[in-house]
Amino acid sequence: MSAEYFAPFETVRYEGPETANDLAYRWYDKDRVVMGKRMEDHLRFAVCMWHTFCWPGSDVFGAGTFSRPWHDGPNDAVRARAKREAALAFVEKLDLPFYCFHDVDVMADADDVASFRSSFAQAVDHLEELQGRTGRKLLWGTANLFSHPRYMAGAATNPDPEVYAWAAMQVRDCLEATHRLGGANYVLWGGREGYDTILNTEIGIEQANFGRFLNLVVEHKHRIGFTGTILIEPKPHEPTKHQYDFDTQTVYAFLKRFGLENEVKVNIEANHATLSGHTFEHEIAMARALGILGSIDANRGDPQNGWDTDQFPNSVEETTLALIEVLRAGGLGNGGFNFDAKVRRQSVDAVDLFHGHIGGVDTIARSLLRAAAILEDGRLEAFRAERYAGWQGDLGRKIHAPETSLADIADLAIQSNHAPEARSGRQEWCENYIARF
Amino acid sequence: MSAEYFAPFETVRYEGPETANDLAYRWYDKDRVVMGKRMEDHLRFAVCMWHTFCWPGSDVFGAGTFSRPWHDGPNDAVRARAKREAALAFVEKLDLPFYCFHDVDVMADADDVASFRSSFAQAVDHLEELQGRTGRKLLWGTANLFSHPRYMAGAATNPDPEVYAWAAMQVRDCLEATHRLGGANYVLWGGREGYDTILNTEIGIEQANFGRFLNLVVEHKHRIGFTGTILIEPKPHEPTKHQYDFDTQTVYAFLKRFGLENEVKVNIEANHATLSGHTFEHEIAMARALGILGSIDANRGDPQNGWDTDQFPNSVEETTLALIEVLRAGGLGNGGFNFDAKVRRQSVDAVDLFHGHIGGVDTIARSLLRAAAILEDGRLEAFRAERYAGWQGDLGRKIHAPETSLADIADLAIQSNHAPEARSGRQEWCENYIARF
Amino acid sequence: MSAEYFAPFETVRYEGPETANDLAYRWYDKDRVVMGKRMEDHLRFAVCMWHTFCWPGSDVFGAGTFSRPWHDGPNDAVRARAKREAALAFVEKLDLPFYCFHDVDVMADADDVASFRSSFAQAVDHLEELQGRTGRKLLWGTANLFSHPRYMAGAATNPDPEVYAWAAMQVRDCLEATHRLGGANYVLWGGREGYDTILNTEIGIEQANFGRFLNLVVEHKHRIGFTGTILIEPKPHEPTKHQYDFDTQTVYAFLKRFGLENEVKVNIEANHATLSGHTFEHEIAMARALGILGSIDANRGDPQNGWDTDQFPNSVEETTLALIEVLRAGGLGNGGFNFDAKVRRQSVDAVDLFHGHIGGVDTIARSLLRAAAILEDGRLEAFRAERYAGWQGDLGRKIHAPETSLADIADLAIQSNHAPEARSGRQEWCENYIARF
Amino acid sequence: MSAEYFAPFETVRYEGPETANDLAYRWYDKDRVVMGKRMEDHLRFAVCMWHTFCWPGSDVFGAGTFSRPWHDGPNDAVRARAKREAALAFVEKLDLPFYCFHDVDVMADADDVASFRSSFAQAVDHLEELQGRTGRKLLWGTANLFSHPRYMAGAATNPDPEVYAWAAMQVRDCLEATHRLGGANYVLWGGREGYDTILNTEIGIEQANFGRFLNLVVEHKHRIGFTGTILIEPKPHEPTKHQYDFDTQTVYAFLKRFGLENEVKVNIEANHATLSGHTFEHEIAMARALGILGSIDANRGDPQNGWDTDQFPNSVEETTLALIEVLRAGGLGNGGFNFDAKVRRQSVDAVDLFHGHIGGVDTIARSLLRAAAILEDGRLEAFRAERYAGWQGDLGRKIHAPETSLADIADLAIQSNHAPEARSGRQEWCENYIARF
Ligand SMILES: [Co+2]
Ligand SMILES: [Co+2]
Ligand SMILES: [Co+2]
Ligand SMILES: [Co+2]
Ligand SMILES: [Co+2]
Ligand SMILES: [Co+2]
Ligand SMILES: [Co+2]
Ligand SMILES: [Co+2]
Repeated sequence: MSAEYFAPFETVRYEGPETANDLAYRWYDKDRVVMGKRMEDHLRFAVCMWHTFCWPGSDVFGAGTFSRPWHDGPNDAVRARAKREAALAFVEKLDLPFYCFHDVDVMADADDVASFRSSFAQAVDHLEELQGRTGRKLLWGTANLFSHPRYMAGAATNPDPEVYAWAAMQVRDCLEATHRLGGANYVLWGGREGYDTILNTEIGIEQANFGRFLNLVVEHKHRIGFTGTILIEPKPHEPTKHQYDFDTQTVYAFLKRFGLENEVKVNIEANHATLSGHTFEHEIAMARALGILGSIDANRGDPQNGWDTDQFPNSVEETTLALIEVLRAGGLGNGGFNFDAKVRRQSVDAVDLFHGHIGGVDTIARSLLRAAAILEDGRLEAFRAERYAGWQGDLGRKIHAPETSLADIADLAIQSNHAPEARSGRQEWCENYIARF
Repeated sequence: MSAEYFAPFETVRYEGPETANDLAYRWYDKDRVVMGKRMEDHLRFAVCMWHTFCWPGSDVFGAGTFSRPWHDGPNDAVRARAKREAALAFVEKLDLPFYCFHDVDVMADADDVASFRSSFAQAVDHLEELQGRTGRKLLWGTANLFSHPRYMAGAATNPDPEVYAWAAMQVRDCLEATHRLGGANYVLWGGREGYDTILNTEIGIEQANFGRFLNLVVEHKHRIGFTGTILIEPKPHEPTKHQYDFDTQTVYAFLKRFGLENEVKVNIEANHATLSGHTFEHEIAMARALGILGSIDANRGDPQNGWDTDQFPNSVEETTLALIEVLRAGGLGNGGFNFDAKVRRQSVDAVDLFHGHIGGVDTIARSLLRAAAILEDGRLEAFRAERYAGWQGDLGRKIHAPETSLADIADLAIQSNHAPEARSGRQEWCENYIARF
Repeated sequence: MSAEYFAPFETVRYEGPETANDLAYRWYDKDRVVMGKRMEDHLRFAVCMWHTFCWPGSDVFGAGTFSRPWHDGPNDAVRARAKREAALAFVEKLDLPFYCFHDVDVMADADDVASFRSSFAQAVDHLEELQGRTGRKLLWGTANLFSHPRYMAGAATNPDPEVYAWAAMQVRDCLEATHRLGGANYVLWGGREGYDTILNTEIGIEQANFGRFLNLVVEHKHRIGFTGTILIEPKPHEPTKHQYDFDTQTVYAFLKRFGLENEVKVNIEANHATLSGHTFEHEIAMARALGILGSIDANRGDPQNGWDTDQFPNSVEETTLALIEVLRAGGLGNGGFNFDAKVRRQSVDAVDLFHGHIGGVDTIARSLLRAAAILEDGRLEAFRAERYAGWQGDLGRKIHAPETSLADIADLAIQSNHAPEARSGRQEWCENYIARF
Repeated sequence: MSAEYFAPFETVRYEGPETANDLAYRWYDKDRVVMGKRMEDHLRFAVCMWHTFCWPGSDVFGAGTFSRPWHDGPNDAVRARAKREAALAFVEKLDLPFYCFHDVDVMADADDVASFRSSFAQAVDHLEELQGRTGRKLLWGTANLFSHPRYMAGAATNPDPEVYAWAAMQVRDCLEATHRLGGANYVLWGGREGYDTILNTEIGIEQANFGRFLNLVVEHKHRIGFTGTILIEPKPHEPTKHQYDFDTQTVYAFLKRFGLENEVKVNIEANHATLSGHTFEHEIAMARALGILGSIDANRGDPQNGWDTDQFPNSVEETTLALIEVLRAGGLGNGGFNFDAKVRRQSVDAVDLFHGHIGGVDTIARSLLRAAAILEDGRLEAFRAERYAGWQGDLGRKIHAPETSLADIADLAIQSNHAPEARSGRQEWCENYIARF
């Protein structure tokens, strides 16, 4: 049933900025070499299963608007199989290398443990076959620990250890499946690891349980020989009032506290960054400074709406700043750009899925080109280096010398008795400079 | 000149909720024993110098509206002395135990290093004398590292090491003065430790310099024998676009990274909590969970306005939730409640300073009584304990046993093959219960 | 099937603040006379059908968590009937006078026009019977013009006139049903009357169509002799990016533009007020100033979450300010307090529905008592009157005299050559004063 | 003293996108004809006096950082003259046609009425001479009714009629000066027309006084023969908690209420739009739909900071959407693009003023070119027209026919018994399409 869904569409190809074809890439030229690496290898794009193949177009105020053929009845084995086929076919049509999934995205519905496991196992067998047939790869897998009612109060932070054990079961299976499917990363994002009200919540217990969980997962990863990266995806809130993995620094605090800062990295989502009060580029720059930059969930929010709109990225201006940070970090390694993005509820046609992804791909590809041009031009980097040059000088080195004390530095200030020079930060010039590329 | 300013006012006394006197305490009965401790010892209230004695009532769009006598000309030695006298006299009139200051709040203006130091030294001599005369004490001191133009790009995170050295000079003097004046804590809050634009900023360099600075301060504290607590006050932004001490977890991340989590605690401001996307009680609960709860800057923001309004606390409902967390933490230790709050710009009279502080004191005192009653009643605590009781049971203990693996837990879930029971979180009951007190 | 659902519960009665009973009213004493009117007549509480009887406890990230008996299968005639019975039984158990509904809340599912109309007609017959049996009344009815996919781009502002005609059909039937059931008001709230992206939107056309629609509805109301009030419920956004009825002033602008300001009033929801950047009391005060205060949707949002959380009101402090404005307005007339509020997703038990509503009722009842006490005490009203007294004086009257020109007033300022006196706004006193009650 | 300040700089010229000159226009080519009009005539750029010549670089947390020569002492007649000369010289160096001012921006300080008037009169004489000498023109004048302490509680909405009379005096003089200087518009923006707390505020009285004031101003405008446009600049809050001219629709409500909708238009500021919860383009589109689009204050806010940052516009992507609306409206008429924008506090050099303005000018000029290209290409316009085509058809016309009733339309829906077709809103395509230009 799914084969026909994308049949009317050609594989999307690079045709350059001047093409009149709405369904071509204007900027994403996968073999083009940028700063010594193919665009495809820089960006490692992935299509997500949940928004693009599972979500029916519903929202809190209304029912689904999409008529995907695999949604024409209960999510049984036949329809789940059709959905998987459609998904991999779509990734192939987009000529992108990766996809991502939650366990429940790819399988038929199941309620008890045994049928859940066998349904998932069946899905994994099929995905392995589909990967082989289509040449698509898994950027990351993750277990959905938030949609089933049992997780209404969290998974690894649930007050009930039985729920925690269910979560452990799902994560083990999903981690092993990811390993088997050659996944490059494994993501942990409970979705409800936080609280609805602090009144009924013991933050201390919940965080200790969460820390324990993450340690167990890391241990298991090593046991099975999975060499991908374990990722946590920060999010400040929604659906919970407060989520424990609020932002990159919060995740870092958590990792440091539980001794995991060398084992786990962050998967930064643009929309989560802005919901937490930060820019997208800030979160990437901070993860870079802390050495925990892992991967990117590519999307955007709406600056006027206070929830996770998960729209396709469409601002080259904003994404360029993110790409500058990615390039400064030396790239994403195992990570990639996963489109955790959904077409709007009114975008009911199959072609809208193409528009969404093509727009996102081109936005990021064009941003990569701009970011590379900026770094290669070098004027901004030179200005920044000059701004901090004092730290390479006598005083800067003295300050960091192990034997120097606060009193030593204070005395230097007193002796020099010199008013520090006022130097412009040149913010407007920086902004104008960036705009030229 | 300042003696007369508060002369018309009586010392503020406890008169109970039914008094008709606008200038009495209705709830703050300093000697009343609550959960085994006098209210005064629980709350350790402080009046801040900056908002209440230095700020002239200006805002970004308009000039000062207040006519304090010590503002009738340049901030020279005479007027600075008058301001100090007025301040301590006011704290005495309020019958509160503590005050807080920045170095520049208490001294005459000075531009070069030498006159800056001598002006501050002169102020400290006078404060010591005033403390003796009035019986008031110093809750904390801090150096103002943000108002002078030299700090426009930060102090310990300034690109220019000369500015850093100036900051070291101020902090050493101010820390030593705080020590000499018997201060209970020393606060570090740069105010501009962050960035205006990420385009011209090297987060990595700035944070390394900031970590170095904090280590130097801690070392100096021990060298001089200061036994008070070093505090950092989180704030997400304003005046900068982004501030490095965004919230409690961000500060914890920073402390862990630089090995300072046992040396430094947080001074949590209510208005900064809400600006960072958290409730006040959340920040306190998180600091408690992380073992870094130090002190409180008591104020409130405006939920509709996105800047630091620093208003006097007036919500017993909200403050009760904060006090519950403080009591659960066993109190604030060296810390206290400092009114980092200012009367509105239209509140131009001396009596308005009384209204502001009396309202703040009573809000917090009444919240303490409510919080204590809630904890003593015990039903909420019992409900919470019951909610997490599973972690004391077999499965909970098993999960945390060192020898248990993820696979062990997953296998337990498979063997039990049991759908976890849906238990209500009882949020509405919790809220109703709190409202009874 | 629904009869048993609330059978274990007693009718909720007033037992006073000191009762130990979690399921009693502590403040809502319906026959108590406040400022000359019974509490029940002041507040005119209503239970809403949608959140409390239709919503299964789902959110964007997860499935329903509630197990109401009428949700154990498709929403057919049998289950819809059970739901109606449960709803009226619940209102009776709460001893509240009113309920509210959308057409689709009370009826079985139906897709084509004919079955839709007959299903709704059947529901209305049954509701009439239930109203008679239980003595409950309808505060307002409304047509759901947002949940069905046909309304994905709005109803009265849909680009497609066929959708507009569908909406007209639903509104006519629902308005007539409301009339027949003795409803006190009829509410119009499209829910999607706005846009997802301005790029594909003609605001001018959409607003003209919306104005036309509202005029047609008002005309029909008069034609059928309905004497209730037509209400619009402002909301700034969600689910759409922007909603045309953003706030009270926006609705007033719209009404004035289409000549409807004497025909239509506003139904102000607390959570929508805060989402639009206003306090709840502001929206009520503004509606009062504009003469369009109609009714209240009683709930609250979460100050840290940027979406419509529709929680039960639990802040007496905030609600008191709203009630002051309601009392100043002389009450709500036909309007009332409708609980457009839902228990949290973790509140899965029938008793949680009681906790939610009892807490909401008591919050508002207690706020009414406080507001009345404040107005009867009179000190705040007197302070306000004094603050504006100048407008009763010579200069104030002169300014408003029809023959006075700008030049006349300017010349008066020049002649008097007098610096206006600085008078304190006494904000802190006002806040302290309110807190006493 | 001011002559030398800009002496080192050449007049800024158009040099095209490829120039290496940081101080040239890359996109603003004033004589280039776009859609039949010169760019200069489309955009009518203005430099504002307040941010660029009066503000010393201070913020709430710190002192001024700039060292403009006219700030080296009290704002007396000599320095005010120097400032005026510098300002007009700067506008000339930028080769822009207009400037804007508040009365107090251009004059020496003065406290009593007589000296205030004579100081302003002297300034106006000088400005007239400078306009003649430099060929620069006045886009608009306005009276500063918010900086002096007398306006702490508002001007036209002040509780004290004496303050109102002062305001009338300033506005009369400033309106007449604007007329004499050939100003194209006159702006009214109280800055504090709103409230700090609703507790001490009578919204009804204040709005009636404000309406009266605006009517008096309009009457005076006609009396003196001023043919420019009277503008109100919406702003939601800051410095006040709530401002009465919250957004465009609020202003429209106010104008309609006081019968002024044909006399007064709006001056839309980008940063105020976003602070009020709207996009910049939304506010322009709404003003267009309501027929009250007057002029633009060109700047931008910071999406993470909740106050008026008044930064120079630097997003071509966002500004293009605004320009599309301006072009659809047929241009701004008397209005223009006024840079109500300030360089950052760290941008201490004269050259930074150039960077700020050049970046702003080029951002808007490039956006104009893109917007014109989009409209000329026509695919988006065609898509929109097609989306609403049904309103030109039988059903659409029928709905709007005067004799049609709600019942008629409802009956049509019943008779057709047809499910409206689901048509995609094509949001992703729209976004991709815009990105091509
Ligand atoms: Co994501
Ligand atoms: Co998201
Ligand atoms: Co503080
Ligand atoms: Co603050
Ligand atoms: Co509502
Ligand atoms: Co709502
Ligand atoms: Co402006
Ligand atoms: Co502004």
